[in-house]
Amino acid sequence: MSNLNDTITAPATPAGVSALAVIRLSGNDAISIANTCFDKDISKANGYTIHYGHIVDGDTRIDEVLLSIFKNPHSYTGEDSVEISGHGSPYITRRIVETLVKHGARIADPGEFTLRAFLNKKLDLAQAEAVADMISSNSEASLQMALSQMRGGFSEDIAVLRQELVDFAALIELENDFGEEDVEFANRPKLKALVDKLLTQIEKLRSSFASGNVLKNGINTVIAGKPNAGKSTLLNALLNEERAIVSEIEGTTRDTIEEVFTLNGIQFRLIDTAGLRESTDHIEKIGVGKTKEHMLNAELLIYLFDISKTTPEQLQIEIAELPQISNTILVANKADTIAHVEKDWPKNTVFISAKNKDISKLTSELERIAGQYEFGNETIVNNARHADALTQSSESLNQVITGIESGITSDLIALDIRNALYQLGLITGEVTNDEVLDSIFTRFCIGK
Amino acid sequence: MSNLNDTITAPATPAGVSALAVIRLSGNDAISIANTCFDKDISKANGYTIHYGHIVDGDTRIDEVLLSIFKNPHSYTGEDSVEISGHGSPYITRRIVETLVKHGARIADPGEFTLRAFLNKKLDLAQAEAVADMISSNSEASLQMALSQMRGGFSEDIAVLRQELVDFAALIELENDFGEEDVEFANRPKLKALVDKLLTQIEKLRSSFASGNVLKNGINTVIAGKPNAGKSTLLNALLNEERAIVSEIEGTTRDTIEEVFTLNGIQFRLIDTAGLRESTDHIEKIGVGKTKEHMLNAELLIYLFDISKTTPEQLQIEIAELPQISNTILVANKADTIAHVEKDWPKNTVFISAKNKDISKLTSELERIAGQYEFGNETIVNNARHADALTQSSESLNQVITGIESGITSDLIALDIRNALYQLGLITGEVTNDEVLDSIFTRFCIGK
Repeated sequence: MSNLNDTITAPATPAGVSALAVIRLSGNDAISIANTCFDKDISKANGYTIHYGHIVDGDTRIDEVLLSIFKNPHSYTGEDSVEISGHGSPYITRRIVETLVKHGARIADPGEFTLRAFLNKKLDLAQAEAVADMISSNSEASLQMALSQMRGGFSEDIAVLRQELVDFAALIELENDFGEEDVEFANRPKLKALVDKLLTQIEKLRSSFASGNVLKNGINTVIAGKPNAGKSTLLNALLNEERAIVSEIEGTTRDTIEEVFTLNGIQFRLIDTAGLRESTDHIEKIGVGKTKEHMLNAELLIYLFDISKTTPEQLQIEIAELPQISNTILVANKADTIAHVEKDWPKNTVFISAKNKDISKLTSELERIAGQYEFGNETIVNNARHADALTQSSESLNQVITGIESGITSDLIALDIRNALYQLGLITGEVTNDEVLDSIFTRFCIGK
Repeated sequence: MSNLNDTITAPATPAGVSALAVIRLSGNDAISIANTCFDKDISKANGYTIHYGHIVDGDTRIDEVLLSIFKNPHSYTGEDSVEISGHGSPYITRRIVETLVKHGARIADPGEFTLRAFLNKKLDLAQAEAVADMISSNSEASLQMALSQMRGGFSEDIAVLRQELVDFAALIELENDFGEEDVEFANRPKLKALVDKLLTQIEKLRSSFASGNVLKNGINTVIAGKPNAGKSTLLNALLNEERAIVSEIEGTTRDTIEEVFTLNGIQFRLIDTAGLRESTDHIEKIGVGKTKEHMLNAELLIYLFDISKTTPEQLQIEIAELPQISNTILVANKADTIAHVEKDWPKNTVFISAKNKDISKLTSELERIAGQYEFGNETIVNNARHADALTQSSESLNQVITGIESGITSDLIALDIRNALYQLGLITGEVTNDEVLDSIFTRFCIGK
């Protein structure tokens, strides 16, 4: 880990020709370094104030900027901080950063501003991770979940669980101190009841990860069907609907991934495997090799057929060959081109005309599926690291139960409780280590 | 032109997943709209203050942000303005802008913030154009020139020229009022002397455009030579040197154009024409068609030859076929592979080994050429629109001279003076029209 006493700097906005660019500066010397590089005296400036002037390197003017001043502890990092808002030229941004470095700052590691915020107890580890989730949020569901986690609801739940365990751990540890005397301060049936209760709560959190993952990352979706069933046309119709919304604001869609569409705040992510696409040329091949793997991992299968070229009997054969995916939608395309009797077809078949963009019955069905994942006020785990820690904690607590039932000694029980506590503590960062911090913060943007 | 009484909003930073994104809001209702969309009361906030809170749409939280408040006239636009600094997610940026629009703002046209700054007399037209130059500046020379123009030195020069003309125009107009009476308030020899002086000054400015253009846009450079002379190797060596500097700061180089390198703050832009490259396979073809045109427009020709496979006599033949470009550098490549006597070769031949990255003699020569364009404190015209207006103004003033010499009537002289004034006024925007403003501001970034 880099030296945390350094004053750090980094661009906080994407490189690109734009109206503004923001450069951050944080650390003990942030105000004095900024003061050296600014053509007005800001050494006495109050926090939460803005100052107009120029970034200078000696006699050379570099940019006309606004400086925002934040004073320890009332800043994002908890340290003295300065944000420099200059002209949005990558060249100027580089010059400003170079000037700050020349006068004593160091280029920040990715996530180092947020790491410092964590170390200065401005936020706990789960909240710090929510900051990264905020930045990568790309749907209403992922945004609201990140905001909720940043508010600390999840952290509080974990804190409550930990406190109950800590109290019991204290009693157990006390027994250990009296080792030879064979006393039991911690009532065994009461401990078992508590651990059972905690296990239920942990299991509830842990099992919410399936939803949390969908809310955060979207629903893995496969559109399959024979050649010319109209898959591309359907995809365009689905994407068009979304594009119409997205493209209202020029310049905001640059990073939109192709083949993702959003309904009711939930993203549907089309699994993009060349193999999968090729294999749809020969539907009978579905279910083999890599493709099968991909399809089995999908959370939603949209199976499209051309109703004008398919009989109900043929469809039954095709269906029999499909992998079992809990959410499967049968979609009869080109329903406008041929007279058909809906009850001849499997129940729940959705009739559309992708070409005419008449896909409302399908989007209704997709909205229903999105609704399954609706985000309410309950705590939802959306982070694999947290889910993993909960699983580990759960395993340790199950050991505690087994231990109590088999009457093992308090020191062994204490060991398992301590491990459960350790795992819960990892989530919020009550306990941590450089490896965990590194793996979390190196995935952050530079400048955050 | 859109309604200037609207309150406008736009993202001011590039779309992209990043630490921060900034959204601008400006106009009469900026503070009240921001107040509606913020979970704290900022209606009484002072200018140049920062406020921490959340952007909300009714009960829905959208982002945790910092709001910066600017009060009319102490803002970039001269209007009440708010800058919202939120998490750098394109999705969140879009949601914030949508929320502001829902509560009464309108999406800004490109350049509309700066247009308003111009209309509110926060800067003149030449300064507004310098803002765009700042944003697109990508070398020290282009940056310093833009900063200088933003400071208004050029505008002052133009204002002085105009004032002298205005004073004389007033006298001439007075003569017109006394039309029938044949009086001459404006002393003709004195007028002629003034116009001569102005013409000299205008010509000096106008002729600085050649340098200004190089400082702003770089030196158009062609690297030519027979196949296997080592052009690509040289290019890589030149670019490598530059890359080493550029890549120090991660994430800042995304928009760097390939095949541009900077020395002493001046850019060398390699003219990238497939035609030109192909034709170098057959050096004898150089000088025909499109390629010739491109080469003739170049400001610098680097002619590379393989000294191990070329005799001085062969080189003379090759040189004879080259187009005449004022700056031409003869470069003997692979000088490390063969014994050679420098005086056998044309004077000023530069000996390098591109493969060994031993190109210091060439870079010295390039630095010498860059030095020709060094930017001092003199006023330099770097904008084709300004150069054009100066030319037009100059033509009108020449008409004035001709008119005085041939003794034409004061009303015709007044007409030419007025036209010269009009042209000078176009530069700083003393006179303007929607067409000129449109053509300037539509080329701006959104959010500026």
